[in-house]
Amino acid sequence: MGTGRLEAFSDGVIAIIITIMVLELKVPHGDELHALTPLLPVFLSYLLSFIYVGIYWNNHHHLLHTTEHVGAGVLWANLHLLFWLSLIPFVTGWMGENHFAPLPTAMYGFILLMSATAWWLLQCCIVKTHSTNAPVVQVLGHNIKSKVSPFLYIGGILTAFYSTWISGALYVAVALLWLIPNKRFERVANEH
Amino acid sequence: MGTGRLEAFSDGVIAIIITIMVLELKVPHGDELHALTPLLPVFLSYLLSFIYVGIYWNNHHHLLHTTEHVGAGVLWANLHLLFWLSLIPFVTGWMGENHFAPLPTAMYGFILLMSATAWWLLQCCIVKTHSTNAPVVQVLGHNIKSKVSPFLYIGGILTAFYSTWISGALYVAVALLWLIPNKRFERVANEH
Amino acid sequence: MGTGRLEAFSDGVIAIIITIMVLELKVPHGDELHALTPLLPVFLSYLLSFIYVGIYWNNHHHLLHTTEHVGAGVLWANLHLLFWLSLIPFVTGWMGENHFAPLPTAMYGFILLMSATAWWLLQCCIVKTHSTNAPVVQVLGHNIKSKVSPFLYIGGILTAFYSTWISGALYVAVALLWLIPNKRFERVANEH
Amino acid sequence: MGTGRLEAFSDGVIAIIITIMVLELKVPHGDELHALTPLLPVFLSYLLSFIYVGIYWNNHHHLLHTTEHVGAGVLWANLHLLFWLSLIPFVTGWMGENHFAPLPTAMYGFILLMSATAWWLLQCCIVKTHSTNAPVVQVLGHNIKSKVSPFLYIGGILTAFYSTWISGALYVAVALLWLIPNKRFERVANEH
Repeated sequence: MGTGRLEAFSDGVIAIIITIMVLELKVPHGDELHALTPLLPVFLSYLLSFIYVGIYWNNHHHLLHTTEHVGAGVLWANLHLLFWLSLIPFVTGWMGENHFAPLPTAMYGFILLMSATAWWLLQCCIVKTHSTNAPVVQVLGHNIKSKVSPFLYIGGILTAFYSTWISGALYVAVALLWLIPNKRFERVANEH
Repeated sequence: MGTGRLEAFSDGVIAIIITIMVLELKVPHGDELHALTPLLPVFLSYLLSFIYVGIYWNNHHHLLHTTEHVGAGVLWANLHLLFWLSLIPFVTGWMGENHFAPLPTAMYGFILLMSATAWWLLQCCIVKTHSTNAPVVQVLGHNIKSKVSPFLYIGGILTAFYSTWISGALYVAVALLWLIPNKRFERVANEH
Repeated sequence: MGTGRLEAFSDGVIAIIITIMVLELKVPHGDELHALTPLLPVFLSYLLSFIYVGIYWNNHHHLLHTTEHVGAGVLWANLHLLFWLSLIPFVTGWMGENHFAPLPTAMYGFILLMSATAWWLLQCCIVKTHSTNAPVVQVLGHNIKSKVSPFLYIGGILTAFYSTWISGALYVAVALLWLIPNKRFERVANEH
Repeated sequence: MGTGRLEAFSDGVIAIIITIMVLELKVPHGDELHALTPLLPVFLSYLLSFIYVGIYWNNHHHLLHTTEHVGAGVLWANLHLLFWLSLIPFVTGWMGENHFAPLPTAMYGFILLMSATAWWLLQCCIVKTHSTNAPVVQVLGHNIKSKVSPFLYIGGILTAFYSTWISGALYVAVALLWLIPNKRFERVANEH
């Protein structure tokens, strides 16, 4: 089977996830500037999550672009990824409304860690169903980012109970790491 | 008419159904671990429904992939299926917030039963408009899962008033049954 | 320009409209049967609106299928239609929660009337940009349903203040009228 | 990479943005006409934002239609645009519920200004990755609307603190300016 409908469905789910997070930014009752102040942490957590979901969409786009065919295993690995991503709005709201309290901040990192694990599983499923010289397999060869990120997430989860500033800095660091585009995907895509 | 737009619209509706269920996971006010405790049954019912909606999307993908053309009858049979699926978030929330009380658990099974009936009707409509040697007709020939599931749903509805544990176990059993991929779809798809 | 992206965007908006209506079915607090009773009128109005939005999607699918190209005028006529359709969840909720009170029932008919007008405008825009022997122009030639519906809607709006039963019956009648598929679209589509 | 999936994802996000704004039109409790009165400013701000988001979708459709390929830079410039557009429902609700008070009205203009800036950045990214004689570069050459709009938005933001009527009139003026279709896009599209 081709990747068309898998991409369309994932686009739909990711588009909704990225947009319903903004519903957590509840319209304040007052019309003064200080009515917006309690929304600042909610806004900051929305911004971070928007970037994370954007990174996943971007990488999903690149990954599926080089994938040639999908079987039942890949469909479920993809749904598994979407499941963890769908919990991002919940932890984003929880972390934002509690002004980056330790437990919600750690839980935020946990959901990011599970999403990264689901992403890694999806890659494995795709690699397993392609021959070793398929473009997608070559691209996924050795990715330093994928190997470093889980440790940074675990670091963020553990440090959340000591200082949520360090924790937040680690989450921002992983996001920045991934914002740098993966040149290999584009290079392989251009070669084909 | 081709199946393209029917797939796109169904993808949109199913993507929204699967994602709005997470809105029932209301952000708790406290930042302690016990603030999450009352959300556990809501989370479990979300997980079960996510898998069910995922199964429907997966099967819909496989079914339409082998379907060659759609008429007005199929369009309405598909909308009928989407109607019952759209009630899943409601019964999921009702069951979760009432900690798997008898009536909501039975109602959850009823919506699953109606969805399965709508799915069966959709298959009939597609078979009726295709010749007997069309791939989609061959695939749908004899499917044991489709025949067993309604009885398990009815079992789940009835046992809900005695023990919601048995009821829940039956719903989980049907989900597991469907998680095993239908080899015939992939085989027929590969042959064409 | 082709119709691809207009269809994709309309599918997205209509899919969301049809699905967010179900959010008005608020999860009740009790777990007894009588907890569902106040939801019955909300459910009935959801059912009627689901059918109406389904009819619009169906007709939209048929219309765009025979349309060959779209210009800026058609894009805006389509957005105008989506605007009125986007108000259907609001009037559906208002009518349902007020148990079919006169004013909400009349307002529901008004939004249906405006949607029908927007649909008619969209057809005019498409006809204007196609030659007289284009399939889409032939199909839209004389449609009795389109001519009768506005009068039934106006009837429904006016009778709402005397008897909402007559009003509701008229809305149901128009829905049933449109559920009968337009054979001409399929015949013309098959010829091409 | 082609523009297909970028268009599909943007369609999804814009479709959700345009539709969730209607959720701010909360179903009133009464069934009398005066129950609708407090909703009038909310409705008017919804109408204005629907037109703005419609304009962005329309322009996005035209822009991507002439774009030949997209790289990582364009994907992120597009996500940046979607980020600012995703804040429109929030400021629309805030402005509407506070009956066009100065600060919310100024903030509404600020989000429109940032969206326009993001749109301009997206255009720059697309132009940078195309040769100077590509259709998309020719089309974007000199656009008076793009140059005038930021000044009108800044005017709207500043005048909001003196008279929200002038401010609102300026926002309406920009919307009307953009409703006039950009003939160049259609002409260039027809030539190819």
